[in-house]
Amino acid sequence: MAASARVNTPQRIAGVALALFNAHGEPNVTTNQIADEADISPGNLHYHFRTKHDLVMALFNAYAKRMEALVGDNNNEPLELDVEDLWLFLHLLFETIGQYRFIYRDLTNLCGRYPALHRRFRRQSERLLATVHQACRGLIQQGMMQASSQELDGLGRNIAVVCTFWLAFDQVHDASHHEATQDRPDRAVWQVMSLISPYLDSETREQLNALADQYLS
Amino acid sequence: MAASARVNTPQRIAGVALALFNAHGEPNVTTNQIADEADISPGNLHYHFRTKHDLVMALFNAYAKRMEALVGDNNNEPLELDVEDLWLFLHLLFETIGQYRFIYRDLTNLCGRYPALHRRFRRQSERLLATVHQACRGLIQQGMMQASSQELDGLGRNIAVVCTFWLAFDQVHDASHHEATQDRPDRAVWQVMSLISPYLDSETREQLNALADQYLS
Repeated sequence: MAASARVNTPQRIAGVALALFNAHGEPNVTTNQIADEADISPGNLHYHFRTKHDLVMALFNAYAKRMEALVGDNNNEPLELDVEDLWLFLHLLFETIGQYRFIYRDLTNLCGRYPALHRRFRRQSERLLATVHQACRGLIQQGMMQASSQELDGLGRNIAVVCTFWLAFDQVHDASHHEATQDRPDRAVWQVMSLISPYLDSETREQLNALADQYLS
Repeated sequence: MAASARVNTPQRIAGVALALFNAHGEPNVTTNQIADEADISPGNLHYHFRTKHDLVMALFNAYAKRMEALVGDNNNEPLELDVEDLWLFLHLLFETIGQYRFIYRDLTNLCGRYPALHRRFRRQSERLLATVHQACRGLIQQGMMQASSQELDGLGRNIAVVCTFWLAFDQVHDASHHEATQDRPDRAVWQVMSLISPYLDSETREQLNALADQYLS
């Protein structure tokens, strides 16, 4: 076996596992199926990843690193973003969610079986919520948005629910599957932006509607 | 064995299965665990429910019947409800969701493995969405709410996402578990009503805030 092929085997296994988990759901995929699809022996897979748990955590850690780069650090200052920046941020967020969608399609189940995943997901989710608050407070400071702190609380939680579960919702509801979230992150972005829309002043709301026309057409 | 005990065995099995599915997730519970917990032999369980599939579908059908009673028939006329009627409707909805929460905690997984459940869930969800639209159009007709048809579309989908996934969100995010949705349906109701709130006229919004003070205290 060439050295380069040997080096790449764990990456290839992880790629195959990700594709199978995304397509069928992690609880429905065995390590033997992964070995079979990667065209290696179960023993070779075991050499690189001792259990399915190790494989799931390797994929989750790769996902978490990307998400943490997106949601940034713990500075809680209002963010100076406009609606276009926010649209782009959500686009990148839903792109990442789409690439690692196995986490989102069986979230409760995975959180129940992988406590380390649950803890890190929850921390990350709180960080996302904080980022959303910072962005909204930034829009308020720039005079583009109006909302009481009670409204911001409810809005933040609703944004978190829609960000976390839009993909599962889309999968359960869309019988045709031809416009799934992973291929059309902007539909998901629009769904989140429509939560913020009623709190925007009319000029900013028009900007948002223009963005929607541009990205959803 | 007394006749009454024999008659009640399927009900008892279903009750035990529901409790175990709700607590641990349907994919993590075996029929042997259900038999054990119901204090009957696996053979006796098999006599009443030939497979776990039969048990899941019996429970889902009981749930679906209750939901269909709630969301009503296919008449698409605007509904003459005020915000208090809507609050009560959502309270009953989240009560039912809480009682059959195993469906919601592993929804994508169940839909993948039980096509009949998926079809009926999707139909029901479309019916719920239609009911939400009827209620909103009723509020608009009564002059309590203002929203364009594009806004109503986005709002309806966001309401459907929050109704469907609030419980899973709550479970993933609430580390303490002491205020879970099944015990506090009004927190879930408030979360949905906060989606509608920015579209209400100020008097109706005050009514809604008074209801929140009353039910959430």
